[in-house]
Amino acid sequence: MGMTASEVNKIKQAIPAPGVLPVIHERWSARAFADREVSGEDLKRVFEAARWAPSSFNEQPWRYIAGVRGTQTHRKIEESLVPFNQQWARKAPVLLLGIAKSTFSHNNAPNLYAVYDLGAASAYLVLQAAALGLTTHQMAGFDREKARTLLGIPEGYEFGSVIALGYQDDPETLGNKELINSETAPRERKPLNEFVYADWAKPLEWK
Amino acid sequence: MGMTASEVNKIKQAIPAPGVLPVIHERWSARAFADREVSGEDLKRVFEAARWAPSSFNEQPWRYIAGVRGTQTHRKIEESLVPFNQQWARKAPVLLLGIAKSTFSHNNAPNLYAVYDLGAASAYLVLQAAALGLTTHQMAGFDREKARTLLGIPEGYEFGSVIALGYQDDPETLGNKELINSETAPRERKPLNEFVYADWAKPLEWK
Repeated sequence: MGMTASEVNKIKQAIPAPGVLPVIHERWSARAFADREVSGEDLKRVFEAARWAPSSFNEQPWRYIAGVRGTQTHRKIEESLVPFNQQWARKAPVLLLGIAKSTFSHNNAPNLYAVYDLGAASAYLVLQAAALGLTTHQMAGFDREKARTLLGIPEGYEFGSVIALGYQDDPETLGNKELINSETAPRERKPLNEFVYADWAKPLEWK
Repeated sequence: MGMTASEVNKIKQAIPAPGVLPVIHERWSARAFADREVSGEDLKRVFEAARWAPSSFNEQPWRYIAGVRGTQTHRKIEESLVPFNQQWARKAPVLLLGIAKSTFSHNNAPNLYAVYDLGAASAYLVLQAAALGLTTHQMAGFDREKARTLLGIPEGYEFGSVIALGYQDDPETLGNKELINSETAPRERKPLNEFVYADWAKPLEWK
């Protein structure tokens, strides 16, 4: 017998720290999606969260193409994924493609922060999803030109990730040893002294 | 008499929505910073949040140069800001510069998601700061080449934003009408139907 989804969540949860938002340690990127729809209300909530991300000049350059299972858009996003991601992500009830407008609307100048701000909006989105008991998995593994063609995305929009969104299922349902191993392995991150610096190449000393 | 910081927070808070994480509607980007240090414990907490953001291949490409007021690093980051930002951001007890490694560590291939993932980590950071009663303000307005030179950042790292971090003060302390007006104006965002699409140029219909 394999592990259940809730047993996996215990392995995946980062060690809680007093004063740190619990949802930040709880969220992780599952691949086993249950055959269960996301309600329109919850879908609205995850976008309501993305909506309030900060952005350069408040441009809000993000745009999401939302494919609900059974629609042409879901099929097109699925088709643009690499085969490794297709095998599991096609089960997700919602597939989102995040894109960002490359220029500012107020003056048509290039927006150097378009993709950065899309990353922020999607971070809000995935945290909100976790708060609702949903899981998300962002993918870089898709054919950008195929997605652009299939979905008719014009020049002037840059790509973020494809985001699978839905409810988590037990790891065994992935039916593939490599995927199951990854689904049940503890999460890892660099310690603070490998990414917080007081100066170039000198880690910050903590008081 | 001007408004107090807590009166401003009432204006800035987005309308809460049931089921949406309150911190998402509460966080906004202040410019009036109080003369009050951020504790080492709270500084650790904001980076602990950034640490758990998702990233492509779990590369965690983000790195933060942290300038605490009184240090050379704080002065260097301040010096790289455009004058408009210097006038208020120099009061912030912490100035962070977010950068991202442009290549994957496992194979040296270009990481197309470096800046996207940095945007996500910084989004986690600013939400966590808000949860601790701190305010943040991200800035694109700085001279990237000056920052690169002053801080000795090598090629192979891309820039995110400069983040001012600290405690909020009353808007009047900004001492400049333009800044005070912006500090006390309600926040605005596009409605969902302007950024959530079922297909290119067709807004998603909500069930």
